[in-house]
Amino acid sequence: MTRYETLADEIEAAVQRGVFGAGERVLSVRRASRQYGVSIKTVLHAYALLESRGVIESRPQSGYFVRGRANGHAPGGAAGPAAAGSGNPGSAGGSGARRAAKPPPAAPTPAPAQVDVSRLVLSTLRNIRVQDAVPLGSPYPDPSLYPWRRINQYANAIARRHASWNLIDDLPPGNPELIRQIARRYAENGAPVDPDEIVVTVGATEAINLSLQAVAKPGDTVAVESPTYYAMLHAIERLGMRAIEVPTHPALGIDLDALARVVARQKIAACMVMPNFQNPLGFQMPDERKAQLVELLGAREIPVIENDVYQELYFGDTRPSTLKRFDTRGLVLHCASFSKSLSASYRIGWAMPGRFRAQVEKLKFLNTLTTPSVPQVALADYLRHDGYDRHLRRLRRFYRQQARLMSAMVLRFFPAGTQVSEPQGGYVLWVELPARIDSMRLYEAALARGVTIGPGYMFSMRNDFHHFIRLNYSYPWTSQTEAALKMLGELVASMA
Amino acid sequence: MTRYETLADEIEAAVQRGVFGAGERVLSVRRASRQYGVSIKTVLHAYALLESRGVIESRPQSGYFVRGRANGHAPGGAAGPAAAGSGNPGSAGGSGARRAAKPPPAAPTPAPAQVDVSRLVLSTLRNIRVQDAVPLGSPYPDPSLYPWRRINQYANAIARRHASWNLIDDLPPGNPELIRQIARRYAENGAPVDPDEIVVTVGATEAINLSLQAVAKPGDTVAVESPTYYAMLHAIERLGMRAIEVPTHPALGIDLDALARVVARQKIAACMVMPNFQNPLGFQMPDERKAQLVELLGAREIPVIENDVYQELYFGDTRPSTLKRFDTRGLVLHCASFSKSLSASYRIGWAMPGRFRAQVEKLKFLNTLTTPSVPQVALADYLRHDGYDRHLRRLRRFYRQQARLMSAMVLRFFPAGTQVSEPQGGYVLWVELPARIDSMRLYEAALARGVTIGPGYMFSMRNDFHHFIRLNYSYPWTSQTEAALKMLGELVASMA
Repeated sequence: MTRYETLADEIEAAVQRGVFGAGERVLSVRRASRQYGVSIKTVLHAYALLESRGVIESRPQSGYFVRGRANGHAPGGAAGPAAAGSGNPGSAGGSGARRAAKPPPAAPTPAPAQVDVSRLVLSTLRNIRVQDAVPLGSPYPDPSLYPWRRINQYANAIARRHASWNLIDDLPPGNPELIRQIARRYAENGAPVDPDEIVVTVGATEAINLSLQAVAKPGDTVAVESPTYYAMLHAIERLGMRAIEVPTHPALGIDLDALARVVARQKIAACMVMPNFQNPLGFQMPDERKAQLVELLGAREIPVIENDVYQELYFGDTRPSTLKRFDTRGLVLHCASFSKSLSASYRIGWAMPGRFRAQVEKLKFLNTLTTPSVPQVALADYLRHDGYDRHLRRLRRFYRQQARLMSAMVLRFFPAGTQVSEPQGGYVLWVELPARIDSMRLYEAALARGVTIGPGYMFSMRNDFHHFIRLNYSYPWTSQTEAALKMLGELVASMA
Repeated sequence: MTRYETLADEIEAAVQRGVFGAGERVLSVRRASRQYGVSIKTVLHAYALLESRGVIESRPQSGYFVRGRANGHAPGGAAGPAAAGSGNPGSAGGSGARRAAKPPPAAPTPAPAQVDVSRLVLSTLRNIRVQDAVPLGSPYPDPSLYPWRRINQYANAIARRHASWNLIDDLPPGNPELIRQIARRYAENGAPVDPDEIVVTVGATEAINLSLQAVAKPGDTVAVESPTYYAMLHAIERLGMRAIEVPTHPALGIDLDALARVVARQKIAACMVMPNFQNPLGFQMPDERKAQLVELLGAREIPVIENDVYQELYFGDTRPSTLKRFDTRGLVLHCASFSKSLSASYRIGWAMPGRFRAQVEKLKFLNTLTTPSVPQVALADYLRHDGYDRHLRRLRRFYRQQARLMSAMVLRFFPAGTQVSEPQGGYVLWVELPARIDSMRLYEAALARGVTIGPGYMFSMRNDFHHFIRLNYSYPWTSQTEAALKMLGELVASMA
């Protein structure tokens, strides 16, 4: 145990003993530093860890408080009682504070944990930023792989072309030339779309949020994969809906029989899936299953939100098909972005919302008015003039190699009983550890050693993935990567 | 009446006679063109007008349908029954389709109208874009007045400085240097703020949305000014809350006595105001009234969302104070942006949410993940190095002159009984017409003559402002502007 972990445990123990009650302020950072004889940095680190465990929260200009009772107003649907319910149909989500349970070290299997998913994810991302850790836990691709400089050159050229820029030109649905370029990509990949259906958004995150809001309302139940990409859970949580998790096969995708039983048994307002290179599993759903999924839901008029952000990062010969292709009813809301294939920092995504297009366009207008113009036009110019296909071919080849390398290294360094996914695209590996490993404990221990991982808790409201982790293999392989994996393997062995 | 107005009236009459029932498809554009012997363009124009009246709606790949019954799913909280309630406390918002009532021409006073505010606003903006009309109805400043080229040069320099850009660096709360620059502006204006409180957003639109969601939940009642800036009504509508409108004095701001009665009588979850250069009224709320407002609401622990987007566009000697300055309880959520002072197309805004900072930051993360990096850094560089103050001094001088000019011209060309606001900042004039004028009819007639105006219906859920219009004076004065005002004056005289 490092110094800050010890301190965090001491303070958590004090909270559990009631020394600091729910809603009460804990020691100021300065005072804790004096009192425990540690550095300010160690205290901050310990408090960050306690925040990620859901024990305390920081309030601006006020300090750190024990979670449990909000003072004054309850945030609307954002956290606490209104958050997405548990995966068990019929059972209400827990109210009040949630925390990542830290099982007693001696226990043979981890205790059930309830986790505030978005808090955990944000805390994980922060730790990557602040600590300059080996970013195995990052959800984002290595930015150095992307043609950032080229795209900015197009942005520069725009500045020379135009003396000014009129916001009105790029009101929703978005810049017309960018929309045309997006439609052209689909057509070139043998899946023509109607450009008039496209609404440009601030990344796929906004596209998913708007799509969900267009088809479901607070209190509704939404079916998701299990494990699922946490942005799906975020959207559900934020809009005050409830998630029901459907078992998902690591190679075939969402279990259609299980889904059929769910929709037969209860009212499902929408289904959110990632049929291509799902994060974290990495599968590519076979075409016939995509068709079956669309038919199963379509027969009941259930809209399906298709998150296809990894569409360009396939390891096979051609871009995989989409659910959209099989949709005859206008019920598929297809969401994607350039963030994984071209530029994450430009934040350009889009939705093709089928029959819900008018609602999504209106919600876009209400949510952020319009997507920034210059990034839209710069990407349109890049797509029209530059070597996007060449860039993508290189990127796919690199990721395919990295996937193999990372799998081999994990299997080499981790103890027996470890299993890995077989990604068909994208840049993340899903690793199953021996069942008694708690991924939050592993996360904390690894963080203390300068390595981040994605704990399985991020991908489910349930406890099924407590012993899974997600690893990012987009960063070029270095001796540091190898040392990080070796260290992780040793940690797992010591915990097993 | 122009050709397309006649056609629109004919089709509307057919709808009212039940020739086309609610939810049914009206004639395709091509067929209507043949059937009525008019051009495709005339049909499109007529259908756009019918859309703005709320009579029909377009559905992608399907055509135009009579509004009234959604097919399949009802959008969650975005429109229809879940939308913001009427201004009368206790009365439920109307369900189903809403339309801008078009009173019979002979009637002495206009009939009450219920308007889908966001539909009207979006339709107005579209007409500005498509028709290249004189943009008196535009809510945006003339983009040629802003240092767009300079800011883009900073964006270019960023491309040279960095080989790549890491999304993680600019996760919420936002780019640290931009946050520092924003805080510096407040300090220079004698109103120091805590940089740690600032959360960067996609324009003030997102800041307002996130702030409202942080403090209130669906079904809650929110107090707004009357008339109010429609983005406030949009946020309330989108989140499924109810608005209660409080009378607002054209020079002093929201009526504190009326507000006191409202909060004494019923539970108010939040109050949304624009104390400086309110859109559309243009007033600057006096300091003592700002303090009283904060105290009145603070005593009941009611959060107040302060929209301060025009803060830099004052006509007086110094930047006016904010509600934030008088807030000792952390209950003021201050929202602002660079869209009115520096660059609308960069979409950079911010929130300072007081004690709700943690919730707003989390909601930002859930809503759009992060604000695009390059615009953040480019604006930070501009603010650090360039002549922002010089630009603003020029802009303020210009707007002050334009305000005088526009007022004088309206009073000269419009019939007796017309009154105008006295803006203390910003770039819009609020014009009261003789009471029997319906601003939607004026809007349509002006649009047919190539001029847009902002009809009073956009600024209220009630009917109080049916005879008001908002005019944008940010565009340099030309003979075309003068001709447009003269034409408007004649239209008003003929309608009065």
